[in-house]
Amino acid sequence: MNVFIVHAHPERRSLNGALTDIAVDTLTGAGHQVRVSDLYAMRWKSAVDADDFGAAASSPLDVVHDSGRAFETRALTADVLAEQEKLRWADTVILQFPLWWYTMPAILKGWVDRVFSYGFGYGVGEHDETRYGDRFGEGALEGKRAMLSVTVGGPGSHYSDRGINGPMDDLLYPIQHGILYHPGMEVLPPFVLYRAGRLSAEAFADAAEQWKERLLTLEDTDPVPYRSQNGGDYEIPAVRLREGLESPGRSGFGLHVRG
Amino acid sequence: MNVFIVHAHPERRSLNGALTDIAVDTLTGAGHQVRVSDLYAMRWKSAVDADDFGAAASSPLDVVHDSGRAFETRALTADVLAEQEKLRWADTVILQFPLWWYTMPAILKGWVDRVFSYGFGYGVGEHDETRYGDRFGEGALEGKRAMLSVTVGGPGSHYSDRGINGPMDDLLYPIQHGILYHPGMEVLPPFVLYRAGRLSAEAFADAAEQWKERLLTLEDTDPVPYRSQNGGDYEIPAVRLREGLESPGRSGFGLHVRG
Repeated sequence: MNVFIVHAHPERRSLNGALTDIAVDTLTGAGHQVRVSDLYAMRWKSAVDADDFGAAASSPLDVVHDSGRAFETRALTADVLAEQEKLRWADTVILQFPLWWYTMPAILKGWVDRVFSYGFGYGVGEHDETRYGDRFGEGALEGKRAMLSVTVGGPGSHYSDRGINGPMDDLLYPIQHGILYHPGMEVLPPFVLYRAGRLSAEAFADAAEQWKERLLTLEDTDPVPYRSQNGGDYEIPAVRLREGLESPGRSGFGLHVRG
Repeated sequence: MNVFIVHAHPERRSLNGALTDIAVDTLTGAGHQVRVSDLYAMRWKSAVDADDFGAAASSPLDVVHDSGRAFETRALTADVLAEQEKLRWADTVILQFPLWWYTMPAILKGWVDRVFSYGFGYGVGEHDETRYGDRFGEGALEGKRAMLSVTVGGPGSHYSDRGINGPMDDLLYPIQHGILYHPGMEVLPPFVLYRAGRLSAEAFADAAEQWKERLLTLEDTDPVPYRSQNGGDYEIPAVRLREGLESPGRSGFGLHVRG
């Protein structure tokens, strides 16, 4: 299996660094191929701008359409093309990051904003009154798996069903469903470490074992059962879930998970 | 009133640019003071790293604690200190941005990651078994108001109660509640423009009128009634909403809105 890890932390000698090191060692040791994009080490450019689209950049800039024309004409920058190639190569993609302000750090958001270009990350397939693209279960990355590995400063109770930050599954929905499932990847349940700044040596050892277990079962773990957009569950083009399909009590993001 | 607009779009001749221009003209015309941080024009640095903390940077880097020591010792960089000063100056803060991948563009996330330092954006007040900081209704920006102005490519149905992207209020919760309310700002309902890439001249004129109306009523608009963390609604230190306080049927992020 080919595993692509996108690592987003400014300090390699950190918990996030340790988790990435464990992933590389564990997966390599099990005979898998592993590639890592260490975004800070790469000095990844975060801001989408006209420089991203080369000769395909319009004036005034039109981010969506220029992105699509740049993708089609291979006018995207070398750093973005290299990441798209790694995504195509991968069977499984892991994003390793600390939760900052309830989502990913800016440098990782910038990786998404730039790499998931129109024609690749979105804007795939027909968009009309009967079909709204190949997305949410279909798309350029269909057949691959993805997983988040997230470190969190606060305790789990703050991210529980009644916790003030909201449930972790809801906070991660825009990433798991909106970014990873959108171009077709199946999403495995996340690996989340709470109180990341206060882990004792013993707690770290336990966490490392759990992480290795997750890594060694990547191929057998059931993905989150998000509903396929084009599988009949949604009214098109409104892309609203048809009435009555959800389990009692489900609402909001939870509607889009089967069962 | 002092209004601080943070503008995050790579093309000034865009819908986002037009909305910021309307805001400056409308508010100035009504006698208010306005300052704008145009993050692309400022070439805002998005990635948190050791350079942000000057002499307060540890090795290995400890983002949370180094951020706090840099804030206390005024070792933060000049660009970050200037933004903190603008936030202190402001009575109302407006974030103007396109929704990219269901949240803010990387450059704006980088503004949050760097400007909302420990001791300023978070890590304010006592954190112990009986109190978990001055946050969610209290903090360094208490008494101010904030509002999002967001442009969205897709139609509103995709972001409605049963829409595949989830309800817009839920997508914006981590920003509105997690970033703006966290240091104490009251949050006004967002101004959201759907199908932003396909607005006719007539639709734009209508939107401009609605936007002006929102701008001229900033001082009178009721904020989203988020629950104060330290007002008695939460168990501390679990910071879970006490049982029975919510309206029937509310769950997830919705629990933390009163009524």
